[in-house]
Amino acid sequence: MAIRKLYGTLGSPDTIRALASIFEHELDFEFIPIDLNAGEHKTESFLSLSVISSSPITQALIFPKNIDDGLTLFESRAIMRFITHYYRNPGTELVYEVPKLQGIAATWIDVEDHQFSPPAEKLRQELVDKAKKGLPMDKEVVAEAEAKLVKVLDVYEERLKHSKYLGGDRFTSADLTHLPYLYHLMGTPVKQLFEERPNVSTWCKDILSRPCWSKVVEMVEKDKV
Amino acid sequence: MAIRKLYGTLGSPDTIRALASIFEHELDFEFIPIDLNAGEHKTESFLSLSVISSSPITQALIFPKNIDDGLTLFESRAIMRFITHYYRNPGTELVYEVPKLQGIAATWIDVEDHQFSPPAEKLRQELVDKAKKGLPMDKEVVAEAEAKLVKVLDVYEERLKHSKYLGGDRFTSADLTHLPYLYHLMGTPVKQLFEERPNVSTWCKDILSRPCWSKVVEMVEKDKV
Repeated sequence: MAIRKLYGTLGSPDTIRALASIFEHELDFEFIPIDLNAGEHKTESFLSLSVISSSPITQALIFPKNIDDGLTLFESRAIMRFITHYYRNPGTELVYEVPKLQGIAATWIDVEDHQFSPPAEKLRQELVDKAKKGLPMDKEVVAEAEAKLVKVLDVYEERLKHSKYLGGDRFTSADLTHLPYLYHLMGTPVKQLFEERPNVSTWCKDILSRPCWSKVVEMVEKDKV
Repeated sequence: MAIRKLYGTLGSPDTIRALASIFEHELDFEFIPIDLNAGEHKTESFLSLSVISSSPITQALIFPKNIDDGLTLFESRAIMRFITHYYRNPGTELVYEVPKLQGIAATWIDVEDHQFSPPAEKLRQELVDKAKKGLPMDKEVVAEAEAKLVKVLDVYEERLKHSKYLGGDRFTSADLTHLPYLYHLMGTPVKQLFEERPNVSTWCKDILSRPCWSKVVEMVEKDKV
């Protein structure tokens, strides 16, 4: 049988986003780590698309029904959307069978992409990456990113008053897509911004404790050793 | 009968993206302009989400099957994705009936969102918005954005050697999502970057001349008078 493959690097929020979606849907797959230091993502065998970006683009090879030679996808949210569309999350309908859910989840995935991720990525670079390298953080950049994140979290706090998850009463990709940055920021002082908002705090604890995410964390931690 | 509504402003690339998708699928709808100068997008009647962003978030109210009270969506690409999923583009299958197409289109929509749009938006601000206000452009910003755009267009040129459209042999949202910035940049010297790449140039002319886009341009031009 053809084997699904995910190419990426466990230090990248994009890769672990795609990985979480694979685990959530209980798909068999093989993870192929890309060695950033060896510049593997810039070799010809890897896709021309990754020349655009300084970081490698997460890539998945999957085999949907009737496509024997497989389908190669890039961009972690596109991989996540594809998986959610065509693989059944055990016990639930396929997302496209529930138009209302699909529309609302698509909205919140784009809110994460355009509003939540930019300040979260800045904070990860300043508070996680730089600390690892022993570099001082840029206080001004941190303050500006925190101010942006606070506005987004206030909207989430309001939203989560009305439903348990961002997409409604059921866990969807709209929640899952937040996991990489939540995971990285929970080990920094920014954690407080999440904890002081009761609905956001409950939501974070809930989604960070999902089995799919525990499997990702296990892989990431093992990789660090 | 309940009426579909699109709220937005015709000067916003986001609004005209959603509008193009509505026209492409030949949907009946009513366009409700939001007056930016009057700060309408910040009034309470408009969504809390728009407080996050300095620009208004494009909003659509649509009525998919079995949802009588309608569904309110935000973010232009989420609106576009939803329309493509649940409304038949005359003469074609629904996108989710063709998994390979859905996966490839989702990848290129995210490439547009993350790689093409950021430099294109910078160039639009410098070369269109500032010119309109009689302000001088920042040459350094323009040069940097052009250098990024060139890398992306080289990848597109290669991709379009193998298929007529980004998603394959058929026009999809992966192409449509590029129309707002193509339209704005074609009136600037950046046009040359598109024209000197033969496949990109043919693709631009093709998609800019689609009936859905002519209808958008007509609305935008009328609004300027």
